[in-house]
Amino acid sequence: MDLDPDVPQTKPSYRLNPQRSMVATGADVRAGRQAAFGLPGHGFADDMVSLSLQAATHWDALAHCFHDYRMYNDRPCELVDAKGASRNAIDVLRDRIVGRGVLADVAGHLGVGALPADHHVTVAELEATLAAQHVEVREGDVLLVRTGHLGRIRREGAWTSFIECDEPGLGHDSLPWLRARGVAAVAADNWAFEVMPSRYELQLPMHAIGIVYMGLVLGEMFELDALAADCREDGRYAFLLSAPPLPFKGAVGAPVNPIAIK
Amino acid sequence: MDLDPDVPQTKPSYRLNPQRSMVATGADVRAGRQAAFGLPGHGFADDMVSLSLQAATHWDALAHCFHDYRMYNDRPCELVDAKGASRNAIDVLRDRIVGRGVLADVAGHLGVGALPADHHVTVAELEATLAAQHVEVREGDVLLVRTGHLGRIRREGAWTSFIECDEPGLGHDSLPWLRARGVAAVAADNWAFEVMPSRYELQLPMHAIGIVYMGLVLGEMFELDALAADCREDGRYAFLLSAPPLPFKGAVGAPVNPIAIK
Amino acid sequence: MDLDPDVPQTKPSYRLNPQRSMVATGADVRAGRQAAFGLPGHGFADDMVSLSLQAATHWDALAHCFHDYRMYNDRPCELVDAKGASRNAIDVLRDRIVGRGVLADVAGHLGVGALPADHHVTVAELEATLAAQHVEVREGDVLLVRTGHLGRIRREGAWTSFIECDEPGLGHDSLPWLRARGVAAVAADNWAFEVMPSRYELQLPMHAIGIVYMGLVLGEMFELDALAADCREDGRYAFLLSAPPLPFKGAVGAPVNPIAIK
Amino acid sequence: MDLDPDVPQTKPSYRLNPQRSMVATGADVRAGRQAAFGLPGHGFADDMVSLSLQAATHWDALAHCFHDYRMYNDRPCELVDAKGASRNAIDVLRDRIVGRGVLADVAGHLGVGALPADHHVTVAELEATLAAQHVEVREGDVLLVRTGHLGRIRREGAWTSFIECDEPGLGHDSLPWLRARGVAAVAADNWAFEVMPSRYELQLPMHAIGIVYMGLVLGEMFELDALAADCREDGRYAFLLSAPPLPFKGAVGAPVNPIAIK
Repeated sequence: MDLDPDVPQTKPSYRLNPQRSMVATGADVRAGRQAAFGLPGHGFADDMVSLSLQAATHWDALAHCFHDYRMYNDRPCELVDAKGASRNAIDVLRDRIVGRGVLADVAGHLGVGALPADHHVTVAELEATLAAQHVEVREGDVLLVRTGHLGRIRREGAWTSFIECDEPGLGHDSLPWLRARGVAAVAADNWAFEVMPSRYELQLPMHAIGIVYMGLVLGEMFELDALAADCREDGRYAFLLSAPPLPFKGAVGAPVNPIAIK
Repeated sequence: MDLDPDVPQTKPSYRLNPQRSMVATGADVRAGRQAAFGLPGHGFADDMVSLSLQAATHWDALAHCFHDYRMYNDRPCELVDAKGASRNAIDVLRDRIVGRGVLADVAGHLGVGALPADHHVTVAELEATLAAQHVEVREGDVLLVRTGHLGRIRREGAWTSFIECDEPGLGHDSLPWLRARGVAAVAADNWAFEVMPSRYELQLPMHAIGIVYMGLVLGEMFELDALAADCREDGRYAFLLSAPPLPFKGAVGAPVNPIAIK
Repeated sequence: MDLDPDVPQTKPSYRLNPQRSMVATGADVRAGRQAAFGLPGHGFADDMVSLSLQAATHWDALAHCFHDYRMYNDRPCELVDAKGASRNAIDVLRDRIVGRGVLADVAGHLGVGALPADHHVTVAELEATLAAQHVEVREGDVLLVRTGHLGRIRREGAWTSFIECDEPGLGHDSLPWLRARGVAAVAADNWAFEVMPSRYELQLPMHAIGIVYMGLVLGEMFELDALAADCREDGRYAFLLSAPPLPFKGAVGAPVNPIAIK
Repeated sequence: MDLDPDVPQTKPSYRLNPQRSMVATGADVRAGRQAAFGLPGHGFADDMVSLSLQAATHWDALAHCFHDYRMYNDRPCELVDAKGASRNAIDVLRDRIVGRGVLADVAGHLGVGALPADHHVTVAELEATLAAQHVEVREGDVLLVRTGHLGRIRREGAWTSFIECDEPGLGHDSLPWLRARGVAAVAADNWAFEVMPSRYELQLPMHAIGIVYMGLVLGEMFELDALAADCREDGRYAFLLSAPPLPFKGAVGAPVNPIAIK
């Protein structure tokens, strides 16, 4: 996703869209108000921004979620305090999440533009999608699950239905499947990666079990529509995925600009 | 570079190091202060940040620099105003700067840990370095120039000598050379990519001419020491470089986490 | 107004509500994560914030508005550039706007909780209100005009109708009246001080003429309901008003916590 | 203090000086880049800021400090979590700290421009100062203690000696004295109000005991030199002090622009 001041949050939230502002501009140069380099017309522009690290396309750090007062690798949850995460922060992944990526275009396989908001993607659907795409998931892969949800929200301008609302996605039943295949990271084109509500005894089981007990790195708000179109065209659903997070020290998540290379 | 609150700016500046702060923590979960999911011990962490977009490793947008009241593609400089860049912003590069990368380890070739701060890297030195490395620069490549400067600054903790101070790098004489080879982007392990001072009639000619008239994308504060060590070991100085900027809408620069893949 | 992350902006805007976040907490102390003072249980909390300077109750600086490329005192408008205001900034008022204040409770005088959104407060209404309140406006006074609008918006939760929407207030016809009486500053309980739309050849004439040509300091989003209730009770509509803006250097506006003292 | 991007923090710190940036400027108006009001030359300027709430002149909230896992009024410290303070926040003082103020110009009484950095102001010195000034402290007063420290730091440009360094001020022995007189709030022209180091078994006893057990509101980085000069001239060291904090919801401190009115 572009880092945009207007979306995805369209109402006040604990998540802040990127708020960019300027400290030097070309209009200043035109108006004769910048003398940076001693020559009229020669100048520069500079900007700053405030944003939530998980405001748009991002990876959750393994420090993002807790269960039973623990985070990944049996670390106590309080190691994430007001100074940040002293373990499992996003910066430990600074040169990771670069490797084989596989797209499972579930929406495409089911022949819809987007899955309905209450659609729980089952393991059977996932397997059928991969089989139809003639691609397999291997150990260490990054699996991208396309629901079509983000694209639909954008087309319809329905952003208020996007944040902490019902959404299609994988559910708790896919955790053993992901574990058995040794998937390193998963991402989807929705808000919280997983189906919501969870229809499970635990809210957000992909977070609580996947992040905390399996060390599964979750990616959210990935734009997958253009990638899916490309894969449909050439029939190749595996690629080199380069998606290292920005290494904010001590952060519990970070924006990323993921790129699929064929 | 890691996105770090303490460096590279160590004094107040128009550039702000990333200032991260928390809106949800594991310490809150431990202290019984988070009831996000209705189950004690089950919770999450979230953070936000304020930073200058060019505070650490970044690409300059083609809207970052002006000469003679113009920016790239003969656009008037005032198209970069207090709302941001309406042309040549960083987000037009959202899926670019992914391709063949070549490292020119000038410091390594000259047998020093880091070039002196007044070292102007000449075209002859650049060519000798590439020849000794048995690598050639091709059209569309991204050229990474290693001066060793950033590594030296970090080793010595000499950050106050890093910002807008003398630094080694390429100078104006390399512009025709870059143009002739069709280099798409260049980056270095220093503050402003180019040698400072410029020893030319124009301050920052790589910016003023390279960005404005040639559309050369400049990268600054790239960490190249580990990459150079790897290239020395396997003798391969060309690689797949994946370095798309974070697509902040309308921004005049953006942080990047560049990855070399062999 | 309290500085609140949720209001008055309820949609993305060029104005940002205060976004507060923590860098040290008591939950950290409880969880044993803060060792600031070498004694368990002894610690501190600290926070930071990002906000637009005109997000809530504030004074406009004389650098906030331009007409015919000029700002107050015939200064060229470009003296407000991306570095801020080099003339007429809010910090020149750091020890000002402390003096006699007068409340004109127009809504109260007209016997309504709040004026309708299309109500243009005329000079006749203003004079009738002051006469009924047995109070006069003197040279150098700060005049507070109560429309009831902000209170109504809050009661109804109608914040989306508050920002850049129709609102009751004074109009251009009151400018000569304010000038003749030597009023130093004016404020109201609405978004932009003045009636919107202006029903005048110029949009926002109180800003364009009042700020630029008269040097009138405008205050917006002042909470006046409690003050009005107090004035009704004791019949005294004049008081000592202490309302110096926070002196942000170079700023074009600043938050204020205005206090009426009787 | 003016809210200044350059001071008091001159090195990276957990406290951030105000970082102001622009979202609309007069230079844009001049360059024809703002069409806000449909008339060339008619426009506005707007800015935003990121800052620590205790970066400059401020009041500590009663939620700012903890001792023995408690804060004021026997509240558990974890009520200050990553969402802010749910008790004792600064916004409960939104219309407070307006009343009789008394200046104790200790530096002036001792005939020095500024007290040395290791000067512990004793109760005897405080009483001698007040006696010499012919002023008494009464119940509910706000006591301002002038050490001259902030003025000296500014004159000498010695800001690196200002943050968490030795400083002159009151010490723990003055707590019973303040309690006996019913002082409501105290402030000084130094960084942390009190003498540092504390020469007591507890670090920062004015915070740990004064805030936590006495509910004493502490003010820091108050500019008192101009006020002292005025008091010396007219011999009146008591005045109306208007110093309500900016009411940031849930904050543990807030900037203030304090005004003494005679």
